[in-house]
Amino acid sequence: MKQLVLIRHGESAWNLENRFTGWADVDLTPKGTEQALAAGEDLRKAGYEFDVAYTSVLRRAIRTLWHVQDAMDLMWIPVVHSWRLNERHYGALTGLNKAETAAEYGDEQVHIWRRSYDVRPPLLETRDERNPQHDRRYSKLATADIPLGECLKDNVERVLPLWNESIAPALKAGKRVLLVAHGNSIRSLIKYLDQVSDSDIMEINVPNGVPLVYELDDNLKPIKHFYLNQG
Amino acid sequence: MKQLVLIRHGESAWNLENRFTGWADVDLTPKGTEQALAAGEDLRKAGYEFDVAYTSVLRRAIRTLWHVQDAMDLMWIPVVHSWRLNERHYGALTGLNKAETAAEYGDEQVHIWRRSYDVRPPLLETRDERNPQHDRRYSKLATADIPLGECLKDNVERVLPLWNESIAPALKAGKRVLLVAHGNSIRSLIKYLDQVSDSDIMEINVPNGVPLVYELDDNLKPIKHFYLNQG
Repeated sequence: MKQLVLIRHGESAWNLENRFTGWADVDLTPKGTEQALAAGEDLRKAGYEFDVAYTSVLRRAIRTLWHVQDAMDLMWIPVVHSWRLNERHYGALTGLNKAETAAEYGDEQVHIWRRSYDVRPPLLETRDERNPQHDRRYSKLATADIPLGECLKDNVERVLPLWNESIAPALKAGKRVLLVAHGNSIRSLIKYLDQVSDSDIMEINVPNGVPLVYELDDNLKPIKHFYLNQG
Repeated sequence: MKQLVLIRHGESAWNLENRFTGWADVDLTPKGTEQALAAGEDLRKAGYEFDVAYTSVLRRAIRTLWHVQDAMDLMWIPVVHSWRLNERHYGALTGLNKAETAAEYGDEQVHIWRRSYDVRPPLLETRDERNPQHDRRYSKLATADIPLGECLKDNVERVLPLWNESIAPALKAGKRVLLVAHGNSIRSLIKYLDQVSDSDIMEINVPNGVPLVYELDDNLKPIKHFYLNQG
Protein backbone atom coordinates (compact mmCIF):
# COMPACT_ATOMS: atom_id res chain seq x y z
CA MET A 1 0.00 0.00 0.00
CA LYS A 2 1.39 3.39 -1.06
CA GLN A 3 0.66 6.54 0.94
CA LEU A 4 0.07 10.00 -0.50
CA VAL A 5 -1.29 12.89 1.55
CA LEU A 6 -2.45 16.08 -0.16
CA ILE A 7 -2.95 19.32 1.74
CA ARG A 8 -4.26 22.59 0.34
CA HIS A 9 -2.48 25.54 2.00
CA GLY A 10 -4.15 27.27 4.95
CA GLU A 11 -6.32 30.34 4.42
CA SER A 12 -4.46 33.15 2.64
CA ALA A 13 -5.05 36.88 2.82
CA TRP A 14 -6.70 36.83 -0.61
CA ASN A 15 -8.86 33.78 0.19
CA LEU A 16 -10.25 35.96 2.94
CA GLU A 17 -10.79 38.92 0.58
CA ASN A 18 -12.23 36.61 -2.08
CA ARG A 19 -9.66 37.69 -4.70
CA PHE A 20 -8.34 35.60 -7.59
CA THR A 21 -4.86 34.75 -6.36
CA GLY A 22 -3.26 32.31 -8.80
CA TRP A 23 0.48 32.94 -8.97
CA ALA A 24 0.37 36.08 -6.78
CA ASP A 25 2.59 35.27 -3.80
CA VAL A 26 0.20 36.00 -0.95
CA ASP A 27 0.90 34.84 2.61
CA LEU A 28 -1.21 32.96 5.15
CA THR A 29 -3.62 34.68 7.54
CA PRO A 30 -3.34 33.88 11.28
CA LYS A 31 -6.24 31.45 10.74
CA GLY A 32 -4.29 29.86 7.87
CA THR A 33 -1.32 29.38 10.19
CA GLU A 34 -3.56 27.69 12.75
CA GLN A 35 -5.01 25.42 10.07
CA ALA A 36 -1.52 24.40 8.96
CA LEU A 37 -0.34 23.61 12.47
CA ALA A 38 -3.56 21.69 13.17
CA ALA A 39 -3.03 19.62 10.01
CA GLY A 40 0.46 18.70 11.20
CA GLU A 41 -0.78 17.87 14.71
CA ASP A 42 -3.59 15.71 13.32
CA LEU A 43 -1.17 13.79 11.10
CA ARG A 44 1.26 13.33 13.97
CA LYS A 45 -1.41 12.11 16.38
CA ALA A 46 -2.71 9.70 13.73
CA GLY A 47 0.80 8.23 13.40
CA TYR A 48 1.63 9.34 9.87
CA GLU A 49 5.24 9.53 8.70
CA PHE A 50 6.69 10.93 5.48
CA ASP A 51 9.89 10.38 3.54
CA VAL A 52 9.67 13.27 1.09
CA ALA A 53 7.54 16.37 0.57
CA TYR A 54 6.48 18.28 -2.53
CA THR A 55 5.26 21.83 -2.69
CA SER A 56 4.94 24.80 -5.03
CA VAL A 57 7.19 27.87 -5.19
CA LEU A 58 4.52 30.05 -3.55
CA ARG A 59 4.87 31.05 0.08
CA ARG A 60 1.36 30.17 1.26
CA ALA A 61 2.03 26.52 0.35
CA ILE A 62 5.65 26.47 1.54
CA ARG A 63 4.73 28.06 4.87
CA THR A 64 1.90 25.57 5.34
CA LEU A 65 4.36 22.75 4.67
CA TRP A 66 6.86 24.23 7.16
CA HIS A 67 4.20 24.32 9.89
CA VAL A 68 3.24 20.71 9.14
CA GLN A 69 6.89 19.62 9.18
CA ASP A 70 7.45 21.46 12.43
CA ALA A 71 4.41 19.91 14.14
CA MET A 72 5.47 16.43 12.94
CA ASP A 73 9.20 16.77 13.79
CA LEU A 74 9.95 16.28 10.09
CA MET A 75 11.86 19.49 9.34
CA TRP A 76 14.73 17.33 8.04
CA ILE A 77 13.00 15.45 5.21
CA PRO A 78 13.83 16.35 1.60
CA VAL A 79 11.47 18.86 -0.02
CA VAL A 80 10.94 19.35 -3.75
CA HIS A 81 9.73 22.83 -4.76
CA SER A 82 8.13 22.94 -8.20
CA TRP A 83 6.33 25.67 -10.14
CA ARG A 84 4.26 22.80 -11.59
CA LEU A 85 2.38 22.62 -8.28
CA ASN A 86 1.53 26.34 -8.31
CA GLU A 87 -2.11 27.43 -8.24
CA ARG A 88 -3.92 27.81 -11.56
CA HIS A 89 -2.79 31.08 -13.16
CA TYR A 90 -5.81 33.40 -13.33
CA GLY A 91 -4.35 35.67 -16.00
CA ALA A 92 -5.81 39.19 -16.07
CA LEU A 93 -8.20 38.26 -13.23
CA THR A 94 -5.26 38.01 -10.81
CA GLY A 95 -5.86 40.34 -7.88
CA LEU A 96 -9.50 41.11 -8.70
CA ASN A 97 -12.19 40.26 -6.17
CA LYS A 98 -15.48 38.64 -7.17
CA ALA A 99 -17.39 41.94 -7.28
CA GLU A 100 -14.73 43.69 -9.39
CA THR A 101 -14.67 40.77 -11.80
CA ALA A 102 -18.44 40.71 -12.20
CA ALA A 103 -18.51 44.47 -12.73
CA GLU A 104 -15.83 44.26 -15.44
CA TYR A 105 -16.81 41.08 -17.27
CA GLY A 106 -20.45 40.37 -16.29
CA ASP A 107 -21.94 37.65 -14.11
CA GLU A 108 -22.50 35.23 -16.95
CA GLN A 109 -18.89 35.30 -18.12
CA VAL A 110 -17.64 34.83 -14.54
CA HIS A 111 -19.95 31.84 -14.18
CA ILE A 112 -18.48 30.33 -17.39
CA TRP A 113 -14.91 30.79 -16.12
CA ARG A 114 -15.79 29.26 -12.77
CA ARG A 115 -17.59 26.23 -14.19
CA SER A 116 -15.73 25.32 -17.36
CA TYR A 117 -12.79 22.96 -17.51
CA ASP A 118 -11.22 24.34 -20.67
CA VAL A 119 -12.11 28.03 -21.02
CA ARG A 120 -9.18 30.26 -20.14
CA PRO A 121 -9.51 33.54 -18.25
CA PRO A 122 -8.41 36.69 -20.15
CA LEU A 123 -4.65 36.35 -20.58
CA LEU A 124 -2.08 38.77 -19.18
CA GLU A 125 -0.34 40.98 -21.67
CA THR A 126 3.35 40.13 -21.94
CA ARG A 127 4.40 43.47 -20.49
CA ASP A 128 2.04 43.14 -17.50
CA GLU A 129 4.00 43.26 -14.25
CA ARG A 130 2.06 40.16 -13.16
CA ASN A 131 3.70 38.19 -16.02
CA PRO A 132 5.77 35.49 -14.22
CA GLN A 133 8.64 36.16 -16.62
CA HIS A 134 9.49 39.15 -14.44
CA ASP A 135 10.02 36.95 -11.38
CA ARG A 136 13.46 35.38 -10.79
CA ARG A 137 11.98 32.10 -9.59
CA TYR A 138 10.67 31.40 -13.11
CA SER A 139 13.71 32.67 -14.99
CA LYS A 140 14.98 29.19 -15.89
CA LEU A 141 11.70 28.11 -17.48
CA ALA A 142 11.11 28.00 -21.23
CA THR A 143 8.92 30.93 -22.28
CA ALA A 144 6.38 28.43 -23.63
CA ASP A 145 6.04 26.93 -20.13
CA ILE A 146 5.22 30.24 -18.46
CA PRO A 147 1.46 30.76 -18.40
CA LEU A 148 -0.28 34.09 -18.98
CA GLY A 149 -3.59 32.56 -17.84
CA GLU A 150 -4.80 28.99 -17.39
CA CYS A 151 -7.94 26.91 -17.42
CA LEU A 152 -8.03 23.82 -15.19
CA LYS A 153 -7.12 21.68 -18.22
CA ASP A 154 -3.86 23.67 -18.56
CA ASN A 155 -3.20 23.13 -14.87
CA VAL A 156 -3.67 19.36 -15.17
CA GLU A 157 -1.29 19.27 -18.15
CA ARG A 158 1.49 21.06 -16.28
CA VAL A 159 1.11 19.03 -13.05
CA LEU A 160 1.28 15.61 -14.75
CA PRO A 161 4.95 15.75 -15.86
CA LEU A 162 5.95 16.25 -12.21
CA TRP A 163 3.70 13.36 -11.20
CA ASN A 164 5.13 11.06 -13.87
CA GLU A 165 8.77 12.02 -13.52
CA SER A 166 9.11 12.47 -9.76
CA ILE A 167 6.11 11.82 -7.51
CA ALA A 168 4.97 8.49 -9.00
CA PRO A 169 8.52 7.03 -9.01
CA ALA A 170 8.96 8.10 -5.36
CA LEU A 171 5.68 6.37 -4.39
CA LYS A 172 6.62 3.25 -6.34
CA ALA A 173 9.95 3.19 -4.49
CA GLY A 174 7.96 2.97 -1.25
CA LYS A 175 8.33 6.58 -0.17
CA ARG A 176 5.50 8.09 1.84
CA VAL A 177 4.72 11.37 0.09
CA LEU A 178 3.35 14.61 1.55
CA LEU A 179 2.22 17.19 -1.01
CA VAL A 180 1.21 20.71 0.03
CA ALA A 181 -0.19 22.77 -2.81
CA HIS A 182 -3.22 24.75 -4.01
CA GLY A 183 -6.91 24.28 -4.72
CA ASN A 184 -6.50 23.69 -8.45
CA SER A 185 -3.16 21.86 -8.50
CA ILE A 186 -4.66 19.41 -5.98
CA ARG A 187 -7.87 19.20 -8.05
CA SER A 188 -5.66 18.34 -11.01
CA LEU A 189 -4.16 15.42 -9.11
CA ILE A 190 -7.57 14.27 -7.84
CA LYS A 191 -8.92 14.35 -11.41
CA TYR A 192 -6.04 12.20 -12.61
CA LEU A 193 -6.01 9.75 -9.68
CA ASP A 194 -9.79 9.22 -9.49
CA GLN A 195 -10.46 9.68 -13.22
CA VAL A 196 -13.02 12.40 -12.53
CA SER A 197 -14.88 13.78 -15.58
CA ASP A 198 -14.20 17.28 -16.91
CA SER A 199 -17.53 18.54 -15.58
CA ASP A 200 -17.55 16.74 -12.22
CA ILE A 201 -14.09 18.01 -11.27
CA MET A 202 -15.38 21.59 -11.31
CA GLU A 203 -17.78 20.70 -8.46
CA ILE A 204 -15.05 19.35 -6.18
CA ASN A 205 -13.73 21.86 -3.65
CA VAL A 206 -10.70 21.10 -1.51
CA PRO A 207 -10.86 22.71 1.97
CA ASN A 208 -7.88 24.69 3.29
CA GLY A 209 -5.49 22.86 5.58
CA VAL A 210 -7.25 19.47 5.85
CA PRO A 211 -5.09 16.42 5.01
CA LEU A 212 -6.56 14.37 2.16
CA VAL A 213 -5.17 10.85 2.51
CA TYR A 214 -4.85 8.55 -0.51
CA GLU A 215 -4.04 4.88 -0.14
CA LEU A 216 -2.81 3.57 -3.50
CA ASP A 217 -2.06 0.11 -4.83
CA ASP A 218 1.25 -0.87 -6.42
CA ASN A 219 0.13 0.60 -9.74
CA LEU A 220 -0.84 3.82 -7.93
CA LYS A 221 -4.57 3.23 -8.41
CA PRO A 222 -6.51 4.64 -5.43
CA ILE A 223 -7.79 2.00 -3.00
CA LYS A 224 -9.48 4.68 -0.93
CA HIS A 225 -9.21 8.30 0.05
CA PHE A 226 -10.52 10.29 2.99
CA TYR A 227 -10.11 13.63 4.74
CA LEU A 228 -8.36 13.34 8.10
CA ASN A 229 -10.37 14.81 10.99
CA GLN A 230 -12.46 17.10 8.82
CA GLY A 231 -14.75 19.57 10.56
CA MET B 1 33.75 35.46 -8.59
CA LYS B 2 31.88 32.73 -6.71
CA GLN B 3 29.74 33.50 -3.66
CA LEU B 4 29.40 31.32 -0.57
CA VAL B 5 27.78 32.55 2.64
CA LEU B 6 28.11 30.50 5.84
CA ILE B 7 25.83 31.07 8.84
CA ARG B 8 26.04 29.31 12.19
CA HIS B 9 22.53 28.77 13.59
CA GLY B 10 21.11 31.27 16.10
CA GLU B 11 21.49 30.70 19.83
CA SER B 12 19.99 27.38 20.93
CA ALA B 13 18.57 26.41 24.31
CA TRP B 14 21.73 24.42 25.09
CA ASN B 15 24.09 27.17 23.92
CA LEU B 16 22.41 29.23 26.62
CA GLU B 17 22.82 26.48 29.24
CA ASN B 18 26.39 25.82 28.11
CA ARG B 19 25.71 22.14 27.36
CA PHE B 20 27.47 19.96 24.79
CA THR B 21 24.80 19.68 22.10
CA GLY B 22 26.26 17.88 19.11
CA TRP B 23 23.59 15.81 17.41
CA ALA B 24 20.94 16.46 20.11
CA ASP B 25 18.09 18.16 18.26
CA VAL B 26 17.69 21.30 20.37
CA ASP B 27 15.63 24.28 19.14
CA LEU B 28 16.44 28.01 18.97
CA THR B 29 15.85 30.39 21.86
CA PRO B 30 13.83 33.59 21.20
CA LYS B 31 17.21 35.37 20.92
CA GLY B 32 18.31 32.74 18.37
CA THR B 33 15.18 33.45 16.33
CA GLU B 34 15.96 37.18 16.39
CA GLN B 35 19.54 36.50 15.29
CA ALA B 36 18.32 34.38 12.38
CA LEU B 37 15.82 36.99 11.18
CA ALA B 38 18.45 39.72 11.54
CA ALA B 39 20.90 37.68 9.44
CA GLY B 40 18.28 37.42 6.69
CA GLU B 41 17.45 41.12 6.88
CA ASP B 42 21.13 42.08 6.73
CA LEU B 43 21.69 39.89 3.68
CA ARG B 44 18.59 41.26 1.97
CA LYS B 45 19.52 44.88 2.66
CA ALA B 46 23.05 44.24 1.37
CA GLY B 47 21.57 42.91 -1.89
CA TYR B 48 22.58 39.25 -1.61
CA GLU B 49 20.76 36.58 -3.62
CA PHE B 50 21.05 32.80 -3.46
CA ASP B 51 20.27 29.99 -5.86
CA VAL B 52 20.54 27.04 -3.49
CA ALA B 53 20.85 26.44 0.24
CA TYR B 54 22.51 23.71 2.27
CA THR B 55 21.78 22.81 5.86
CA SER B 56 22.00 19.95 8.37
CA VAL B 57 19.19 17.68 9.53
CA LEU B 58 19.04 19.43 12.92
CA ARG B 59 16.22 21.82 13.66
CA ARG B 60 18.28 24.71 15.05
CA ALA B 61 20.03 25.01 11.68
CA ILE B 62 16.94 24.35 9.57
CA ARG B 63 14.86 26.87 11.51
CA THR B 64 17.63 29.45 11.18
CA LEU B 65 17.66 28.83 7.42
CA TRP B 66 13.86 29.16 7.26
CA HIS B 67 14.00 32.55 8.99
CA VAL B 68 16.72 33.72 6.60
CA GLN B 69 14.76 32.48 3.58
CA ASP B 70 11.63 34.18 4.87
CA ALA B 71 13.37 37.52 5.46
CA MET B 72 14.96 37.36 1.97
CA ASP B 73 11.80 36.23 0.10
CA LEU B 74 13.69 33.06 -0.89
CA MET B 75 11.40 30.40 0.58
CA TRP B 76 11.21 28.85 -2.90
CA ILE B 77 14.91 28.04 -3.53
CA PRO B 78 16.05 24.41 -3.42
CA VAL B 79 17.43 23.24 -0.07
CA VAL B 80 19.75 20.28 0.48
CA HIS B 81 19.56 18.73 3.96
CA SER B 82 22.59 16.63 4.86
CA TRP B 83 23.69 14.87 8.06
CA ARG B 84 27.24 15.70 6.90
CA LEU B 85 26.63 19.30 8.00
CA ASN B 86 25.52 18.28 11.49
CA GLU B 87 27.40 19.59 14.51
CA ARG B 88 30.40 17.60 15.76
CA HIS B 89 29.09 14.57 17.68
CA TYR B 90 30.15 14.97 21.31
CA GLY B 91 29.68 11.30 22.19
CA ALA B 92 29.10 10.61 25.89
CA LEU B 93 29.47 14.34 26.65
CA THR B 94 26.19 15.05 24.81
CA GLY B 95 23.81 16.85 27.15
CA LEU B 96 26.39 17.57 29.89
CA ASN B 97 27.09 21.15 30.87
CA LYS B 98 30.61 22.44 31.43
CA ALA B 99 30.46 22.03 35.22
CA GLU B 100 29.13 18.46 35.02
CA THR B 101 31.81 17.55 32.50
CA ALA B 102 34.61 18.97 34.64
CA ALA B 103 33.25 17.18 37.72
CA GLU B 104 33.14 13.84 35.88
CA TYR B 105 36.32 14.00 33.81
CA GLY B 106 38.50 16.70 35.41
CA ASP B 107 39.46 20.17 34.16
CA GLU B 108 42.60 19.02 32.41
CA GLN B 109 40.83 16.39 30.31
CA VAL B 110 38.10 18.86 29.35
CA HIS B 111 40.80 21.33 28.29
CA ILE B 112 42.38 18.63 26.08
CA TRP B 113 39.05 17.86 24.41
CA ARG B 114 38.33 21.53 23.80
CA ARG B 115 41.77 22.32 22.37
CA SER B 116 42.80 19.23 20.44
CA TYR B 117 42.03 18.62 16.80
CA ASP B 118 42.19 14.84 16.86
CA VAL B 119 41.31 13.62 20.37
CA ARG B 120 37.82 12.15 20.49
CA PRO B 121 35.43 12.61 23.40
CA PRO B 122 34.36 9.44 25.23
CA LEU B 123 32.25 7.47 22.74
CA LEU B 124 28.62 6.55 23.23
CA GLU B 125 27.90 2.92 23.90
CA THR B 126 25.98 1.32 21.04
CA ARG B 127 22.89 0.78 23.19
CA ASP B 128 22.86 4.40 24.43
CA GLU B 129 19.60 6.11 23.50
CA ARG B 130 21.67 9.01 22.15
CA ASN B 131 23.15 6.68 19.48
CA PRO B 132 21.96 8.21 16.17
CA GLN B 133 21.13 4.71 14.93
CA HIS B 134 17.92 4.97 16.93
CA ASP B 135 16.77 8.03 14.97
CA ARG B 136 14.84 7.51 11.71
CA ARG B 137 16.65 10.37 9.97
CA TYR B 138 19.90 8.39 10.03
CA SER B 139 18.37 5.00 9.18
CA LYS B 140 19.64 5.01 5.58
CA LEU B 141 23.28 5.60 6.61
CA ALA B 142 25.91 2.88 6.70
CA THR B 143 26.64 1.93 10.31
CA ALA B 144 30.28 2.92 9.74
CA ASP B 145 29.16 6.47 8.86
CA ILE B 146 27.19 6.96 12.08
CA PRO B 147 29.44 8.53 14.71
CA LEU B 148 29.43 7.63 18.41
CA GLY B 149 31.68 10.63 19.17
CA GLU B 150 33.86 12.86 16.98
CA CYS B 151 36.93 15.04 17.16
CA LEU B 152 37.10 18.02 14.78
CA LYS B 153 39.23 15.94 12.40
CA ASP B 154 36.36 13.45 12.10
CA ASN B 155 33.99 16.32 11.42
CA VAL B 156 36.21 17.69 8.64
CA GLU B 157 36.38 14.23 7.05
CA ARG B 158 32.63 13.81 6.93
CA VAL B 159 31.93 17.35 5.64
CA LEU B 160 34.37 17.16 2.71
CA PRO B 161 32.50 14.55 0.62
CA LEU B 162 29.47 16.86 0.57
CA TRP B 163 31.71 19.76 -0.40
CA ASN B 164 33.36 17.81 -3.19
CA GLU B 165 30.27 16.08 -4.55
CA SER B 166 27.65 18.79 -4.25
CA ILE B 167 28.64 22.23 -2.91
CA ALA B 168 31.79 22.78 -5.00
CA PRO B 169 30.08 21.70 -8.26
CA ALA B 170 27.17 24.05 -7.50
CA LEU B 171 29.57 26.96 -6.94
CA LYS B 172 31.52 26.11 -10.10
CA ALA B 173 28.24 26.12 -12.03
CA GLY B 174 27.77 29.72 -10.91
CA LYS B 175 25.24 29.09 -8.16
CA ARG B 176 25.26 31.44 -5.20
CA VAL B 177 25.32 29.18 -2.16
CA LEU B 178 23.89 29.78 1.32
CA LEU B 179 24.97 27.28 3.97
CA VAL B 180 23.44 27.27 7.45
CA ALA B 181 25.07 24.85 9.83
CA HIS B 182 26.91 24.53 13.16
CA GLY B 183 30.01 25.80 14.92
CA ASN B 184 32.18 22.83 14.05
CA SER B 185 30.82 21.93 10.61
CA ILE B 186 31.47 25.56 9.62
CA ARG B 187 34.91 25.44 11.25
CA SER B 188 35.58 22.35 9.13
CA LEU B 189 34.80 24.29 5.96
CA ILE B 190 36.86 27.28 7.09
CA LYS B 191 39.81 24.99 7.79
CA TYR B 192 39.56 23.50 4.33
CA LEU B 193 38.96 26.77 2.45
CA ASP B 194 41.61 28.83 4.24
CA GLN B 195 44.05 25.96 4.86
CA VAL B 196 44.10 26.68 8.58
CA SER B 197 46.49 24.55 10.67
CA ASP B 198 45.21 21.87 13.06
CA SER B 199 46.10 24.00 16.07
CA ASP B 200 44.96 27.38 14.76
CA ILE B 201 41.52 26.10 13.81
CA MET B 202 40.75 25.33 17.47
CA GLU B 203 41.10 29.05 18.24
CA ILE B 204 38.56 30.16 15.66
CA ASN B 205 35.05 30.68 16.99
CA VAL B 206 32.13 31.33 14.70
CA PRO B 207 29.45 33.61 16.21
CA ASN B 208 25.78 32.60 16.13
CA GLY B 209 23.68 34.04 13.34
CA VAL B 210 26.24 36.32 11.65
CA PRO B 211 26.68 35.78 7.87
CA LEU B 212 30.27 34.90 6.97
CA VAL B 213 30.74 35.85 3.31
CA TYR B 214 33.36 34.10 1.15
CA GLU B 215 34.27 35.39 -2.28
CA LEU B 216 36.01 32.60 -4.20
CA ASP B 217 37.88 32.46 -7.49
CA ASP B 218 37.02 30.01 -10.28
CA ASN B 219 39.08 27.30 -8.56
CA LEU B 220 37.20 28.02 -5.31
CA LYS B 221 40.23 29.58 -3.65
CA PRO B 222 39.13 32.32 -1.24
CA ILE B 223 39.77 35.86 -2.51
CA LYS B 224 38.46 37.31 0.71
CA HIS B 225 36.06 36.64 3.52
CA PHE B 226 34.29 38.86 6.01
CA TYR B 227 31.48 38.88 8.54
CA LEU B 228 28.48 40.90 7.42
CA ASN B 229 27.44 43.60 9.90
CA GLN B 230 29.04 41.97 12.90
CA GLY B 231 28.37 43.54 16.28
